[in-house]
Amino acid sequence: MTKLVLISRDYDMAHLAPMIRRAAPELDVTMHGSHDALDAEVAVCWNPPVGAVAALPRVRLIHSIAAGVDNILADPRLPDVPLCRVVDPQHARGMSEFVMWGALHFHRQLDQVMANQRDRVWLRYDQRAPATRTIGVMGLGEIGTRVGLDLHRAGFAVRGWSKRPKDLPGIDTFSGADALPAFLQGTDILVCLLPLTDETRGLLDARLFAMMQPGAKLIHVGRGEHLVPGDLLDALRRKQIGGAIVDVFPNEPLAADDPLWDAPDLIVTPHMASVASPETIGLQVALNVRRLVGGEPLHHRVDIARGY
Amino acid sequence: MTKLVLISRDYDMAHLAPMIRRAAPELDVTMHGSHDALDAEVAVCWNPPVGAVAALPRVRLIHSIAAGVDNILADPRLPDVPLCRVVDPQHARGMSEFVMWGALHFHRQLDQVMANQRDRVWLRYDQRAPATRTIGVMGLGEIGTRVGLDLHRAGFAVRGWSKRPKDLPGIDTFSGADALPAFLQGTDILVCLLPLTDETRGLLDARLFAMMQPGAKLIHVGRGEHLVPGDLLDALRRKQIGGAIVDVFPNEPLAADDPLWDAPDLIVTPHMASVASPETIGLQVALNVRRLVGGEPLHHRVDIARGY
Ligand SMILES: NC(=O)c1ccc[n+]([C@@H]2O[C@H](COP(=O)([O-])OP(=O)(O)OC[C@H]3O[C@@H](n4cnc5c(N)ncnc54)[C@H](OP(=O)(O)O)[C@@H]3O)[C@@H](O)[C@H]2O)c1
Ligand SMILES: NC(=O)c1ccc[n+]([C@@H]2O[C@H](COP(=O)([O-])OP(=O)(O)OC[C@H]3O[C@@H](n4cnc5c(N)ncnc54)[C@H](OP(=O)(O)O)[C@@H]3O)[C@@H](O)[C@H]2O)c1
Repeated sequence: MTKLVLISRDYDMAHLAPMIRRAAPELDVTMHGSHDALDAEVAVCWNPPVGAVAALPRVRLIHSIAAGVDNILADPRLPDVPLCRVVDPQHARGMSEFVMWGALHFHRQLDQVMANQRDRVWLRYDQRAPATRTIGVMGLGEIGTRVGLDLHRAGFAVRGWSKRPKDLPGIDTFSGADALPAFLQGTDILVCLLPLTDETRGLLDARLFAMMQPGAKLIHVGRGEHLVPGDLLDALRRKQIGGAIVDVFPNEPLAADDPLWDAPDLIVTPHMASVASPETIGLQVALNVRRLVGGEPLHHRVDIARGY
Repeated sequence: MTKLVLISRDYDMAHLAPMIRRAAPELDVTMHGSHDALDAEVAVCWNPPVGAVAALPRVRLIHSIAAGVDNILADPRLPDVPLCRVVDPQHARGMSEFVMWGALHFHRQLDQVMANQRDRVWLRYDQRAPATRTIGVMGLGEIGTRVGLDLHRAGFAVRGWSKRPKDLPGIDTFSGADALPAFLQGTDILVCLLPLTDETRGLLDARLFAMMQPGAKLIHVGRGEHLVPGDLLDALRRKQIGGAIVDVFPNEPLAADDPLWDAPDLIVTPHMASVASPETIGLQVALNVRRLVGGEPLHHRVDIARGY
């Protein structure tokens, strides 16, 4: 009987055990710290304590419960076994909903309209066609691609930025660090859907904001560590960034005294842009473990050297 | 040379004259009140003064510059000639953007998240699939149909209500006054896209709100006179209505001392959900006048007895 252990230092994963068992009753699912966990062959992780996976002598698969794996790769003692992540169309759809909401919020100037309401000011703005609004999506992976295609279908001008060149219908694509300035110029609303890697850490900083048109908007739904919060605060105060929706922060939850809570023109959301459902996580983990046991190729394997 | 006159008691229509001329240079376009207006054959109207159209002895077409014609039919002395309105896919798309924004705002609980931000509270809500959220669209005309189909495509459960029975792919349809209670039950987010007629005036009142599930949301983008503002205020205060976005009001602009400005859980927007572009208005009016002159059937003619 193949044993799985659920490991996290800050997230209660107990509700995932019945989901995995429901999808594959033959699996033995246990929790990190329980006496029988040490002979587990599969570690299912979110923010695992450093060394916790390495402490499992029989481990041969690490499975993330999310799309991002930066929280697992942060463990410097991670054993050299395959790492897989969750990829789910419903999850991408949830992200697309959130970004569509944010894009429409800025496109239709609801940010200004809602501020006007507080001042009891009735003011109509010109209504622009969505094709005159350019949305730039950083990261054209499983999620960014879906988001970009949905924005294109809604009529927006969409451009995307990835590491390697890409060809996507209706999306103007840019790739590599050299193309970043050209990608940013002309972007009215920037959406960050990158994975967190050594290359992308701190990318959303003063230097990048300065490359954008004054007053451009930001929707940040990648990872907290992409962002340099002080630089954003400064860019908002100077109106270099004309408005932002930020869902992820270097320290979550945001502390009660964090200046971001009432930064000008900033909407703070609590890392909610999209979560995979427990059912989906359970199913994908269970099916991948069955593939492992059956010697079949694993799905949604992460390139550890690349970091995503 | 066929003469058109632009008539409004409260809206400066001067910018529409060049648009009509650009689309049909052979037309003679003049403004209400000018000395040569009296022999006009076409009255292009928005909120015309009572009797202004009747004062044109040669008038044989009245053209609205909007989708709704209630502001024209409000004139009790309107002559018995054809009345046409503007119907434009871009106009319907603008409305769809606005309603999509509002639906996502409520669906993803951004109303609560933004209230939490003001209190510096970090709180994640369960993320529900859009198929578990029922959006009810009142009015399945040119605009309501487009809005309903787009909401369906985004994954929501969509139902619609119209006067006569309708069959629309993916939309659960209800028709007639008798079906209204069944339509309202189970609706999580109600969207009003009705025209203003004797039958629909004051429909959004305490009686209707009481038929809805406690905490249901309202997006009102029809006409101001559909709504009984005091009843909405009361329903919001009692949380019978859990949140509302209201774009149209019986008296516009909303007075600075109107209690709606800071009603609980209400977003006030300044009749901005969608406007047809001046280019489109000019083009549609010009082409319909050419049809009139050529003896061809007019487009987008209103059924005056029905009122829309
Ligand atoms: N806020 C939330 O609730 C939430 C929820 C889910 C996911 N997320 C975030 O969304 C991220 C993306 O998820 P995904 O499943 O779409 O990831 P993915 O499939 O791994 O795609 C990553 C994309 O980023 C691009 N990329 C990586 N490094 C880059 C670099 N240095 N320069 C330019 N482009 C680079 C990749 O380019 P190539 O295509 O060329 O490889 C790829 O297009 C996750 O890692 C996570 O940070 C957030
Ligand atoms: N806020 C804004 O910026 C804005 C912008 C544009 C339009 N609007 C509003 O949107 C309205 C709709 O525009 P449209 O072009 O879609 O109108 P439309 O094509 O004339 O359609 C009207 C719809 O309402 C239904 N209806 C009329 N009376 C009804 C009744 N008593 N009970 C049930 N259903 C009834 C009709 O049913 P049948 O199909 O059975 O005839 C039809 O489906 C306009 O009249 C205006 O009030 C607002």
